[in-house]
Amino acid sequence: MRHLLLNDIAEMNSRYRATFINSLSGFKSLNLVGTVSETGVNNLAPFNSIVHIGANPPCLGMIARPATEEHQTLANIKANKQYTLNAVNESIFEQAHQCSAKYTADQSEFTETGLPLFYSEKLKAPYVASSNIKIGLELIEIIPIHFNQTSLIIGKIIEIILPESIIEEDGFVNIAKAGSITCNGLDSYYKVSPLKRIPYAKP
Amino acid sequence: MRHLLLNDIAEMNSRYRATFINSLSGFKSLNLVGTVSETGVNNLAPFNSIVHIGANPPCLGMIARPATEEHQTLANIKANKQYTLNAVNESIFEQAHQCSAKYTADQSEFTETGLPLFYSEKLKAPYVASSNIKIGLELIEIIPIHFNQTSLIIGKIIEIILPESIIEEDGFVNIAKAGSITCNGLDSYYKVSPLKRIPYAKP
Repeated sequence: MRHLLLNDIAEMNSRYRATFINSLSGFKSLNLVGTVSETGVNNLAPFNSIVHIGANPPCLGMIARPATEEHQTLANIKANKQYTLNAVNESIFEQAHQCSAKYTADQSEFTETGLPLFYSEKLKAPYVASSNIKIGLELIEIIPIHFNQTSLIIGKIIEIILPESIIEEDGFVNIAKAGSITCNGLDSYYKVSPLKRIPYAKP
Repeated sequence: MRHLLLNDIAEMNSRYRATFINSLSGFKSLNLVGTVSETGVNNLAPFNSIVHIGANPPCLGMIARPATEEHQTLANIKANKQYTLNAVNESIFEQAHQCSAKYTADQSEFTETGLPLFYSEKLKAPYVASSNIKIGLELIEIIPIHFNQTSLIIGKIIEIILPESIIEEDGFVNIAKAGSITCNGLDSYYKVSPLKRIPYAKP
């Protein structure tokens, strides 16, 4: 067993610490966030911090890093108030990872990685055509997390495009059946296999 | 393909909608959050909304539902400023699910589910002895999400207890090797198998 205290973490080399802390707290969802800049450049960025905020109205949250010129997603969402989430599956995860490279603001990750574009009639923000679960969102608010300059972006779901066959009778979306994968940390990808669905727990 | 708009979601039956929206956005991490009440009752609750907030200082966030008498975790964290995260693995996920049952404030999920207690010298909040990755946190802040009365709880990691063998050379924590599982929605559990780790992406 390894027993680490705050001091031990503080003394880690910064890249080692980032890898360590990012991979510590569990498997995460993996979505490509699609946005468009004010000058019309389409952007795609992998996000593993999507959280459920509420079902009515249907809302999702995600954590954005401190705003810098390198990070177009937050700037584009502020400008256009719209974004898309595109579930990453086994056939596109390597291209999704490549979207984390530091392209400049005038380069589109769609062009750079070859991921195909899809537009719906509801949003200006682009979808990834080869993603099986597409969610369109409208910005509700950006909540600043002051102590480290990150922020929580909250959006309302205004559109969902997904295969009919993965929606079960009670509303459960069988994302495993759609080929969705999970990730750990910033660079490690996993397939899933079902253990069990368990009925609603009572005391 | 099914194409749903905001109206279609609004018209869903409320339990169907909760199941649908909760399972839509991807696989999530699964941790039991351990807290203790002011009167000394130990509480355990499953959370699937853990997000990375920062590595330096090492911080994690999680979303708490609107505060009600039924939800002891938020009240306990407010009172004690401390909590633990305990990674759920294949041998304890059914007990972890059972912790979501509505026990009263004077019942401890440790007693009700048989999950064994563990205390470190650093925290009053209890750990789950049979969890392989234990993280102790100190409250930094609770950020209210006003529009639906949820909140983002942010804590600083002050202690980590994990097997030496799952820490790789570059700091990557191989949680799959520790038996950690993932979940989708409120009741569906999955094992993982590795696809690939991909080197840092460059344009």
